[in-house]
Amino acid sequence: MPSRLDRLRGEMASRNLDAFLVTDLLNVRYLSGFTGSYAFALITRDDAVLLTDFRYAEQSAEECPGLYLELVESHWVPGAQRAVERAGVKSVGFESHSLSYHHWSELSAAIPDIRLVPEEDLVGRLRLVKDEAETALIREAVRIADLAYAHIAKFIKPGLTERDVAAELDFFMRRNGADKEGFDTIVASGPRSALPHGKSSDRMISKGELIVLDFGAAFQGYHSDITRTFVLGPPDDRQDEIYGIVLEAQSKAISALRPGLLGGDVDSVAREYIAERGFGEHFGHGLGHGLGLDVHDGRVLARASEIMLEAGMVVTVEPGIYIPGWGGIRIEDDVLVTDSGAEVLTQSPRRLAIQRKESGGHV
Amino acid sequence: MPSRLDRLRGEMASRNLDAFLVTDLLNVRYLSGFTGSYAFALITRDDAVLLTDFRYAEQSAEECPGLYLELVESHWVPGAQRAVERAGVKSVGFESHSLSYHHWSELSAAIPDIRLVPEEDLVGRLRLVKDEAETALIREAVRIADLAYAHIAKFIKPGLTERDVAAELDFFMRRNGADKEGFDTIVASGPRSALPHGKSSDRMISKGELIVLDFGAAFQGYHSDITRTFVLGPPDDRQDEIYGIVLEAQSKAISALRPGLLGGDVDSVAREYIAERGFGEHFGHGLGHGLGLDVHDGRVLARASEIMLEAGMVVTVEPGIYIPGWGGIRIEDDVLVTDSGAEVLTQSPRRLAIQRKESGGHV
Repeated sequence: MPSRLDRLRGEMASRNLDAFLVTDLLNVRYLSGFTGSYAFALITRDDAVLLTDFRYAEQSAEECPGLYLELVESHWVPGAQRAVERAGVKSVGFESHSLSYHHWSELSAAIPDIRLVPEEDLVGRLRLVKDEAETALIREAVRIADLAYAHIAKFIKPGLTERDVAAELDFFMRRNGADKEGFDTIVASGPRSALPHGKSSDRMISKGELIVLDFGAAFQGYHSDITRTFVLGPPDDRQDEIYGIVLEAQSKAISALRPGLLGGDVDSVAREYIAERGFGEHFGHGLGHGLGLDVHDGRVLARASEIMLEAGMVVTVEPGIYIPGWGGIRIEDDVLVTDSGAEVLTQSPRRLAIQRKESGGHV
Repeated sequence: MPSRLDRLRGEMASRNLDAFLVTDLLNVRYLSGFTGSYAFALITRDDAVLLTDFRYAEQSAEECPGLYLELVESHWVPGAQRAVERAGVKSVGFESHSLSYHHWSELSAAIPDIRLVPEEDLVGRLRLVKDEAETALIREAVRIADLAYAHIAKFIKPGLTERDVAAELDFFMRRNGADKEGFDTIVASGPRSALPHGKSSDRMISKGELIVLDFGAAFQGYHSDITRTFVLGPPDDRQDEIYGIVLEAQSKAISALRPGLLGGDVDSVAREYIAERGFGEHFGHGLGHGLGLDVHDGRVLARASEIMLEAGMVVTVEPGIYIPGWGGIRIEDDVLVTDSGAEVLTQSPRRLAIQRKESGGHV
C-alpha cells in the first residue's frame, strides 16, 4: 500500500490542489504520527509541515521525523500563512467540517490570493482502509476488551449498580494495558436496556432482567467496541426468542461481508431479517460503523451507505431490537474485511445466560 | 441574577440581533439544561427552540421544559432553517468558533435573506460568572477530588508506575460519586515532572523524586482541577526551596484575588514574585483558567488577560516552575471570587513531603 501521505497526494492531484490543510487532529495524527493535543498540517506535493506549539516542539520532532516543524501559538493562522507562502502554492484544500467559520475567515483574509477549496472528508475516506500497523493496534484494543468481558462476567451480580459495573470494567481495561476506555461505557439494565445510548446510572441490577454492556478499549489511539446483552440467571422465553433473532441477524450480516459490496447492502441483510421476524420498527440505528483512530470512523454500514467495502476496513456489526418498557438486546462485534470475506476479531462468547452457581462460581 | 436566557437576550439586544444560534454543545447545555450529546438551540427575543434527534426526544422534553422541541437528523441545518423561518427573524448571531465552514455555508444557502452575524464568545463570557446551582456542583466536584487526594497519598509508594497511580485515582473518584475524571489525569514523576502536560506513563515512581499529580472530577457536568507536587520520603534542599517559592507565589496571587481586578494583574502578582526569585523563565504558562462546564472555562488568569474579575467566577490558581532535566513543581487550587475577595474551595494539604512510617502508616 502506498504511504498515507502519497495516498493523500494522489487525491490532491486528481483535484488539482497544490496543498492541503489538515485541521482535524485525528487526521493530523493519521498523516504525521503526532500524538499530542494541538497540531495542524500543511501537505504539499513534495513537502509536509507540522504546525504545533512550544509544548510539543521536542515530541513532534521525535514523532514526525519527515515533517518540517513550524511553531505556532494559540493563534495558529499566521503560522499557516507563513507555511503557505513559503511553499509558494496557489490552491489549498481544507477540511470544511473541522475548520471553523472563524478560522476560515481569518485564513481567507491572511492569504487573499490563494484559492481556498472546501473538501468534505478527504482524509477520512483514506482512513477507512487500515494498514497492518493499524490493524495490529485494533487487535490489541479488541484483546483487552475481550479480557475485560471475561472479567466482568465473573464480577457482575445482582445488587450492584450500573455505575459500579462500568467503573470496574474501565478500571480493569486500564490495568490491562488500555490507555483508557474508548468511550463512555454503557451499562443499561432492565427497561433502560431499551435506550440505545443510555448512560450508566445508579440503577441496581437484578436477576432475570436484560443487561446491555457496550464498551471498548483505546490502545495507542485505536479502538475496540463491543456489546454483549445477557441475563443473570435463566432468561424467559421472550428474551430467548428475541436474542436468537438479533444473533441470527448478526450472523447473516457477518457472513455476507466481503469486498465489493456496498455498506448499505450489508445493513439490509440484517435489517430485512429483523423485519421478516416482525421487529423491523424496533431496530432504529445503523448496522455498524468503521473503527480506528475514532470509535466512529465512518458510517460504513449505515442504512443506504454507498461506501464500497474493501479489504482492510474494520467495522462493527451491531444489530439491536429495542422495545420501550420491555428492554433491548444488542450484539456487537468488530470485524476485519479480508480479501475473501471477513474475520471476526472479538472473541467474547455470545451467550444470553450468565448463571452463578450457588457455590459462587460461574457456569 | 437574571436567568441565563435573559442575560443572553440582553447581549442580543445590545447587538441588535433578533435571534442567536447556539452550536457549541456546552453552551446549549448551559442555556437549556440539555445533557445529551447532540443538540443545537435557537434563542429569539421571546422564545427558545431546542434542535435534537429522536434519541433525545423524551430526555429533552424532561430536561428543557421551557423550550420548543424541533427534531432533526444528522443533517441539522434544515431544522435550523425551519426554526428561523417560523420565528420570522431577520438577523441571527452564530458562534463563529464552533460553527464549521461546512455548516455555515449550508446555512447561508438555506436562509439567504437572513443576516448571519459571527459572534466570538458571547455565551462563553456569560458562563464565566457562576450562579449558585453551578457553584454547588463545582463544590461537589472539588470535594471528590480532595477525597481522592487523601486516598492516593496513602496508596502511592515507590515501585508503582505513573499509570498505576492514575488508574487508581480515577477509579476512586468514580467510586465516590464522580461521573468520571474531568480530564486525563497527569501523574508525572522525576524528570517527567518538568513537562507541564506530560501524560501518565509506564515510568516507575521512586523515593526522593518529584511527583506531580494533576487531576479533577466531573460531577453532573461541572469540574474540579487540582495539582499537588510531592516527594516520597524527605525532600532535598533544592526541592524544598523551589516548592516554597511556588507556594508563596500561589498564596500571594490568592490573597490578591478580588472583584474589579483584571485577570492579567493577578497573573502578574505570581509571575513577578517567581521572576524576583530568579525563576521567571521557568514559569511558561498562564496562572489559571476558569472552571465550570468546561475544565478550561475561559482564559481568566492568563498573562495580559483583560477579563475583569467578578464575584461568582471560579478560577484555578496554578503557578509552576519547570526545570528541564531536574523536574517541575506546580501547585493548583480552585478558588471562588467572592464579594470581598476569594474563597479557596480545594482543601487538600499543600505539603511537599509524603513520608511513610516503617510500620506502614503515614505521617
